[in-house]
Amino acid sequence: MSTGQIICVGLGPGDPDLMSVKADRLLRQSRHVAYFRKRGHPGKARQLVNGLLHAQVTEYPMEYPLTTEIPHDDPRYVAQLSDFYRDWQQRLTDLAREQDVLVLCEGDPFFYGSFMHLYIRLRQAGQVPVHVLPGIPGMVGCWHATGVPMTWGDDVMTVLPATLPDERLRAHVAGAEALVFMKVGRHLPRIRAVLQAAGKLDQSWLVINGTMADEQVMPLREAPERCPYFAIVIVHGQGRRPANDLQAAGSLVALDL
Amino acid sequence: MSTGQIICVGLGPGDPDLMSVKADRLLRQSRHVAYFRKRGHPGKARQLVNGLLHAQVTEYPMEYPLTTEIPHDDPRYVAQLSDFYRDWQQRLTDLAREQDVLVLCEGDPFFYGSFMHLYIRLRQAGQVPVHVLPGIPGMVGCWHATGVPMTWGDDVMTVLPATLPDERLRAHVAGAEALVFMKVGRHLPRIRAVLQAAGKLDQSWLVINGTMADEQVMPLREAPERCPYFAIVIVHGQGRRPANDLQAAGSLVALDL
Repeated sequence: MSTGQIICVGLGPGDPDLMSVKADRLLRQSRHVAYFRKRGHPGKARQLVNGLLHAQVTEYPMEYPLTTEIPHDDPRYVAQLSDFYRDWQQRLTDLAREQDVLVLCEGDPFFYGSFMHLYIRLRQAGQVPVHVLPGIPGMVGCWHATGVPMTWGDDVMTVLPATLPDERLRAHVAGAEALVFMKVGRHLPRIRAVLQAAGKLDQSWLVINGTMADEQVMPLREAPERCPYFAIVIVHGQGRRPANDLQAAGSLVALDL
Repeated sequence: MSTGQIICVGLGPGDPDLMSVKADRLLRQSRHVAYFRKRGHPGKARQLVNGLLHAQVTEYPMEYPLTTEIPHDDPRYVAQLSDFYRDWQQRLTDLAREQDVLVLCEGDPFFYGSFMHLYIRLRQAGQVPVHVLPGIPGMVGCWHATGVPMTWGDDVMTVLPATLPDERLRAHVAGAEALVFMKVGRHLPRIRAVLQAAGKLDQSWLVINGTMADEQVMPLREAPERCPYFAIVIVHGQGRRPANDLQAAGSLVALDL
């Protein structure tokens, strides 16, 4: 049996002060820390813990295979990724036989997180204990960056990957009060068009790197044509509430920017 | 001008180890701490910080007016609540003229939180600085309690207040992959019927007090007829992913319970 375990920690939206007490403690103690990154990049999760890791830590960057030239629905892409996850499943398992291994994950690991692909393999194999710690999702940091409450009373909130086709985006935009578009990046012009057609452009916000030092918040109508992959578009819910609340919330936009 | 400020801290889903580093620090330092509660109850937010507050703290329980006999859409209910919020807006403002005041909020304050009603009044009045710290929303703690990832790849996630009429619930259940029903309580039988009609009952989970010592997780089909107000019903997304991932995720249910 193993004496160690694999613990994936959700690091939250970016500000180290917003990590959980437990994540902070584990980061400072752990001697073995793994994280995903693209080859040639420092890794977003790794950057969030700069200055927090133990002096004697050993780091394990899990570098995604280079797949830019293969479309994501190509069987070769799926096979390459499968090999990559299987390889790291084995390496983390071997490490955890003798000691704890921490895996870093930005935001919340169970909310569109990369670790989930390793997690289900590790759980299915059942060779070492695996734990996952929740974190504040990136979108929560982003709606706080706007300074405006997100959902009230009976509001429905829908979270939409910006990668979805226009038709599906349109249907959801029509039915929800509060909206979050994830992974915006090159889809920004499409998202803007969908929100404009629904009459919601003037209530839409673009947030880039919410809660981080280089945070940017702007009305979507004033946003540039392109933005980073991790940018989020937000439409706040208005909910059922006293009339003077509604009026006050409307005035927040003017207060904030 | 004031020398203090009002800071609302999101306490996260329940486990004190999941509070943010900043929330933990502020709780231990603050001499003035306010929180909502029902008359005759200790207050959910207050219970989450047992043992964490400063020895010389002064507490300000903000007790909701007794409104059980008035329907929530009655103008008298709205007026009573308005008076209540206006009263506490004034009292917190007076306190903050000379010192910092912490306001406790379970989960994330901007996600269906009670403090938002005070927040917009305080911001509009502009007499003292107001800050809000994000927390891990209760629903995030609840999906971690199930041990199963929530959203993958292109999954749409929809958050539904269980108070909505069946017709609106049905429309949203049909269009989303991942689902969260908030404030379930006495609406549990309706939610179950809606999910059963959509063929999703067997993938649905009920989570009560997720991440807390008295956490309960069960398949919805095995749930009792009634549950607490703060219970959450979850349907996990299945997303686009390699076939063996899907198979592994299916087997998690058997692993977990």
